[in-house]
Amino acid sequence: MTSTTRFGEIAPLLEGQAIEVPSWAYGNSGTRFKVFGSAGTPRTVEEKIADAATVHRFTGLAPLVSLHIPWDLVDDFAALRRYAEDLGVGLGTINSNTFQDDDYKLGALTHTDPRVRRKAVDHHLACIDVMRATGSRDLKIWLAEGTNYPGQGDMRGRQDRLAESLRTIYDALDEDQRLVLEYKFFEPAFYHTDVPDWGTSYVQVAALGERAMVCLDTGHHAPGTNIEFIVAQLLRLGKLGSFDFNSRFYADDDLIVGAADPFQLFRIMVEVIRGGGFGPANPDGQSQVAFMLDQCHNIEDKIPGQIRSVLNVQEMTARALLLDTDALRAAQEAGDVLGANEVLMDAFYTDVRADLAAWREERGLAGNPLRAYLASGYQQQIEADRVGGTQAGWN
Amino acid sequence: MTSTTRFGEIAPLLEGQAIEVPSWAYGNSGTRFKVFGSAGTPRTVEEKIADAATVHRFTGLAPLVSLHIPWDLVDDFAALRRYAEDLGVGLGTINSNTFQDDDYKLGALTHTDPRVRRKAVDHHLACIDVMRATGSRDLKIWLAEGTNYPGQGDMRGRQDRLAESLRTIYDALDEDQRLVLEYKFFEPAFYHTDVPDWGTSYVQVAALGERAMVCLDTGHHAPGTNIEFIVAQLLRLGKLGSFDFNSRFYADDDLIVGAADPFQLFRIMVEVIRGGGFGPANPDGQSQVAFMLDQCHNIEDKIPGQIRSVLNVQEMTARALLLDTDALRAAQEAGDVLGANEVLMDAFYTDVRADLAAWREERGLAGNPLRAYLASGYQQQIEADRVGGTQAGWN
Amino acid sequence: MTSTTRFGEIAPLLEGQAIEVPSWAYGNSGTRFKVFGSAGTPRTVEEKIADAATVHRFTGLAPLVSLHIPWDLVDDFAALRRYAEDLGVGLGTINSNTFQDDDYKLGALTHTDPRVRRKAVDHHLACIDVMRATGSRDLKIWLAEGTNYPGQGDMRGRQDRLAESLRTIYDALDEDQRLVLEYKFFEPAFYHTDVPDWGTSYVQVAALGERAMVCLDTGHHAPGTNIEFIVAQLLRLGKLGSFDFNSRFYADDDLIVGAADPFQLFRIMVEVIRGGGFGPANPDGQSQVAFMLDQCHNIEDKIPGQIRSVLNVQEMTARALLLDTDALRAAQEAGDVLGANEVLMDAFYTDVRADLAAWREERGLAGNPLRAYLASGYQQQIEADRVGGTQAGWN
Amino acid sequence: MTSTTRFGEIAPLLEGQAIEVPSWAYGNSGTRFKVFGSAGTPRTVEEKIADAATVHRFTGLAPLVSLHIPWDLVDDFAALRRYAEDLGVGLGTINSNTFQDDDYKLGALTHTDPRVRRKAVDHHLACIDVMRATGSRDLKIWLAEGTNYPGQGDMRGRQDRLAESLRTIYDALDEDQRLVLEYKFFEPAFYHTDVPDWGTSYVQVAALGERAMVCLDTGHHAPGTNIEFIVAQLLRLGKLGSFDFNSRFYADDDLIVGAADPFQLFRIMVEVIRGGGFGPANPDGQSQVAFMLDQCHNIEDKIPGQIRSVLNVQEMTARALLLDTDALRAAQEAGDVLGANEVLMDAFYTDVRADLAAWREERGLAGNPLRAYLASGYQQQIEADRVGGTQAGWN
Repeated sequence: MTSTTRFGEIAPLLEGQAIEVPSWAYGNSGTRFKVFGSAGTPRTVEEKIADAATVHRFTGLAPLVSLHIPWDLVDDFAALRRYAEDLGVGLGTINSNTFQDDDYKLGALTHTDPRVRRKAVDHHLACIDVMRATGSRDLKIWLAEGTNYPGQGDMRGRQDRLAESLRTIYDALDEDQRLVLEYKFFEPAFYHTDVPDWGTSYVQVAALGERAMVCLDTGHHAPGTNIEFIVAQLLRLGKLGSFDFNSRFYADDDLIVGAADPFQLFRIMVEVIRGGGFGPANPDGQSQVAFMLDQCHNIEDKIPGQIRSVLNVQEMTARALLLDTDALRAAQEAGDVLGANEVLMDAFYTDVRADLAAWREERGLAGNPLRAYLASGYQQQIEADRVGGTQAGWN
Repeated sequence: MTSTTRFGEIAPLLEGQAIEVPSWAYGNSGTRFKVFGSAGTPRTVEEKIADAATVHRFTGLAPLVSLHIPWDLVDDFAALRRYAEDLGVGLGTINSNTFQDDDYKLGALTHTDPRVRRKAVDHHLACIDVMRATGSRDLKIWLAEGTNYPGQGDMRGRQDRLAESLRTIYDALDEDQRLVLEYKFFEPAFYHTDVPDWGTSYVQVAALGERAMVCLDTGHHAPGTNIEFIVAQLLRLGKLGSFDFNSRFYADDDLIVGAADPFQLFRIMVEVIRGGGFGPANPDGQSQVAFMLDQCHNIEDKIPGQIRSVLNVQEMTARALLLDTDALRAAQEAGDVLGANEVLMDAFYTDVRADLAAWREERGLAGNPLRAYLASGYQQQIEADRVGGTQAGWN
Repeated sequence: MTSTTRFGEIAPLLEGQAIEVPSWAYGNSGTRFKVFGSAGTPRTVEEKIADAATVHRFTGLAPLVSLHIPWDLVDDFAALRRYAEDLGVGLGTINSNTFQDDDYKLGALTHTDPRVRRKAVDHHLACIDVMRATGSRDLKIWLAEGTNYPGQGDMRGRQDRLAESLRTIYDALDEDQRLVLEYKFFEPAFYHTDVPDWGTSYVQVAALGERAMVCLDTGHHAPGTNIEFIVAQLLRLGKLGSFDFNSRFYADDDLIVGAADPFQLFRIMVEVIRGGGFGPANPDGQSQVAFMLDQCHNIEDKIPGQIRSVLNVQEMTARALLLDTDALRAAQEAGDVLGANEVLMDAFYTDVRADLAAWREERGLAGNPLRAYLASGYQQQIEADRVGGTQAGWN
Repeated sequence: MTSTTRFGEIAPLLEGQAIEVPSWAYGNSGTRFKVFGSAGTPRTVEEKIADAATVHRFTGLAPLVSLHIPWDLVDDFAALRRYAEDLGVGLGTINSNTFQDDDYKLGALTHTDPRVRRKAVDHHLACIDVMRATGSRDLKIWLAEGTNYPGQGDMRGRQDRLAESLRTIYDALDEDQRLVLEYKFFEPAFYHTDVPDWGTSYVQVAALGERAMVCLDTGHHAPGTNIEFIVAQLLRLGKLGSFDFNSRFYADDDLIVGAADPFQLFRIMVEVIRGGGFGPANPDGQSQVAFMLDQCHNIEDKIPGQIRSVLNVQEMTARALLLDTDALRAAQEAGDVLGANEVLMDAFYTDVRADLAAWREERGLAGNPLRAYLASGYQQQIEADRVGGTQAGWN
């Protein structure tokens, strides 16, 4: 059977693939040393959504835009939702922020001071209100909390206070809403983070209830961590709520997904599919596992960076779908180490790009979305239009 | 209040400290490149126990010897127990071995072949029989299982089979016996290990029941992992069953505990104490958390290496007990980052060695157990006596 | 011989210890997520120097302030020098900056565009002019250069261009000036940095000449790297120019030196002393190896953070000086692994704090400089005085 | 231009590719926990060579076999050479061993005892004699030396003694022989290794002379190290002597090259080619840079494992040769980050397997060497023939 034949078989499964893009990827970002601006950067949430909709228009892969509160705060979220829908996209996950207020310097949901904890909880309740207006399903909580010096905080007490704060937030959710709790190995806290690993996120959300899930950011692990194992484990436990896709060479580099280790992205997608995490979208355009990007385009162009990212996910999904699972299982059960590995590598090494281009063209999309975008004049247009004002960034 | 005064206050808490020493630490060990032998190395389990009893005689800290099956297999474990008790020590944790039989090349409790799984389960049932004869409380399971190549095994299927195998073993335990499941980041499997992190061990033992606990080996983590956080978390969850103490610079080096990063050992002991894991021994000489050594003395002398190890644990326990927890809490609650850190460092930097020496002498022990051992002639005696036969090692 | 007796012997060696403090440590710093301000933060370079002089006044350890250009640019550096000297401190190393100009987004000394390279070289020539006015010996170059994506740059061509740019800068130095080239494992570039390791810094400075040296920042290595080995190697090669002291748990955390792993700091100081890098200050208050701090006080108080830092260096220097090198050599030559380690640990575990306090008091300093600072009213004074204006930071 | 057209252009460059296979890859290997044997494993060096020749017969890629002394010690190396040549292969690099003699427990070339150093030097002189008989060009020195505990050894003194020992060995080489010095981050020593990084290897071999070079083992680096940067740097310095190819997920796993991160192998080959390290073989079948495998087939079949390995190197070489270097340079010089990355990824993602199969068939080789080997009956033959005796391993 030729590669093209096999592609034809898996093509229908690609139809429903939906990747959420974050509004903040279209704003400026950088390192602690410098944030470089670029011409055409959005000044408003509406402009961010317009850019996100452009990514969707060229790729057909990004029907949802994820918002960050307060960066994307507007007076009328219902209007914002209509604005997005008019551009062909929906509003997705709502991300809270407890790391940019002076009160949160030493903690938010875990702070020793009940007043600060209450403030941080209230912020999440406000986010839930936003979700009601936007129709969002997921409230994503990334906690920047932790300590920099041994002794600075009581790690166990903080864990208990976290549990209490999350309980209040979870109980405020509507029945069709979910809480997803992200974990992160380090940064911005350096000695300890309050939710450093999947185990901690898991025990916290397991204590909350069925609609609390884990968010796996692919850049938030110690070096050498087998991430696809965690994917498999969380799917086995029914607790994989969402991905934050990006890639990294050493720390939380937030590079374009698949750029640092495409084989790792492939292996992750293999486990997602094997574990039932990839499936036809529900009527709202969301699968059970939310596939989100969370990247920083510090030096590269932002819209092309997002286009490249969603295409990388699609390409690796296609390769993962090509995996001959019967042959793989047979080799595994026969104890054929090299044979089983070869079956896996065969899928990874299959060049799906031409097939995907043809498939896109059948659907009225450009075969090469990046080239089409570059030729479209959109970039020149926004560079000309978006003059003055304050470019969006992480504030 | 002087340091000596404070030492007097914490001294009673040191009374019950009991550290288990592993029988295999007295045999030869090494790396994949070479195992160096040394004069006086035990040839039998009895000689290992004699050496372990010597460590206890000089330190008063090591009343239990942990055994490894089949390395320490004897016909009459009841007799072995009496032999140990006559030397002043008890038999402690029983460690199983599922990594040295050809059948286990591709897995044991997780193997695709039910026959191999059954064999591995039966080995554990045999270990439980040993526990009944030795009076051991804990069955410790370290799984060398995993895969070396992507695709080689079905990680999720292996997790399910592991759960099933552990269930059978757990159900065979007596009411006063426990199962402790160790996790390990890598080695001897390189691509994935079936129990790579505390989260996996936790979800497996949580599914089993109350008497299934996690074993934390201090050398089994990714670089940069905050181990004391895991200690705090497992104690919070009521699931910290035991430690395998050792130290490492990079991988699972199995060096003398406290040798690589004494400050880390101190921080671990601080969390153990804060979390209720350190307490008076029960009548069997065991606290709820078993403090075991698991080290390799590849190039250094073995008995002195063990003496140094238990002393390191004692010294760091004493420093951790000296922590002024009231001052710490006050600084933490005041948000005094440097002040809280200083309270912690003050305990760490306090030199307890002279106080401990005096305390030992009050109890009839040598102030400097290592010097006393070296002067005792024991080493010369075993070197003279233990001639011929096969020196014990990892087989 | 008691510990105090030994302290008396090493005390004279502590006299000349001089640690450079960086002007930027007194300004605000943070992570890419947030920079928290604090009351009393300097608005001008003069205020930074006043704070640095305060650290010296209380500790006697910090006679030099290191400047960063352009952050500390003033019209009249000769006047600034007099201002500093009036406060009892000198101006030390001049640090260049090639990472905050839009032109440098893709490189500076390594850029493909000769115009950008020239601009970056010229900046260094301007720094050399500053050095002439301030009387500084060292021009320190930390290069933020590198790439984020494979293929983005020609790593080898960049290395060649770097060599050429450095040559021009080096040739512009006066005979009594030095160039020190820092290396850094990662950040702000994520895929590759142009000077990622000591080997690269060494081959670049060795090609320049005798007055080009390596700067070792203790936070700029891969996990598991044995830093004291690099110290020993660079001293052996005669190429250790300076330290940037700080500490880290995982990445370039820039925490207070000695906070994360005090034993590592001790081992570094042992190699510095053994390798001849620690000695009486020259008439300008500088030893051959410049001991600089490079830290970020993101959440802790800045002046107390610097006081704690220089005290940590002093305490570990004292412990390292206490090392019984004769006993150590004897144990090493006898192949006594545990004995040699014990000699080393004995020095590390010796609590020198009381001796150092007494030694300080003999010299008219407070025994506890941190307490004395906190009681001095200086902090309250600057918080009251420094109202309005723009707090200094990394810009 | 189609992919096949481009393949036609680069195909001639593949002709001279020669990969050395190590004799020990055909023997048993494992971890410190267990060495699993397998049917058909060689008992003698002749059987190892026969297996290596089989790899060459099926792939056309492995014309040289690297030997390890004393594992492969024979009385008559001239006869062994003829034996190999009759089988169609030559004898390549000679590897010394200073890690399996009791004398070397604490060091060999670095030992404090001049008698032990002399013994280790003499071993290398004997290896040079072997090289004369085998016609080998390279003496490869991997030093297992280092220390496990801080203080155990004088790191700087060891460096000096190493330099002296290497000097004696280097001076004994013939004019057409080279010394290549391998570096290794850790293992079997855990606290420090005497040649831990490329910088140390470089300064040691640079001090020796032109025919002393660095050996880069792809598994011997800290996590996150950019290995292709080191390749580029060593080629720039004219000091890249040889590779030890393998792959790893965390430590020195010695897995099949390209198995863990094929994209990394591709990037390495790109730098090799860009830096002039890949070229037509000299008359002896060797390029200037020796491409050797150094792997352990702990659980997979050995001959198929070696076949897969040399094919992986060939496949990644072909992809690297396909790189459109003109387009890449243009994008780099235009500052087109995403464009440059895309040019690189385009080469990596090109599936060369069918082209390579056709190319092999044109040369009388099987299109799929692994399938051809499995169908050849060789494995069954050696399993039937090699009964009794002692299987070869690391001793």
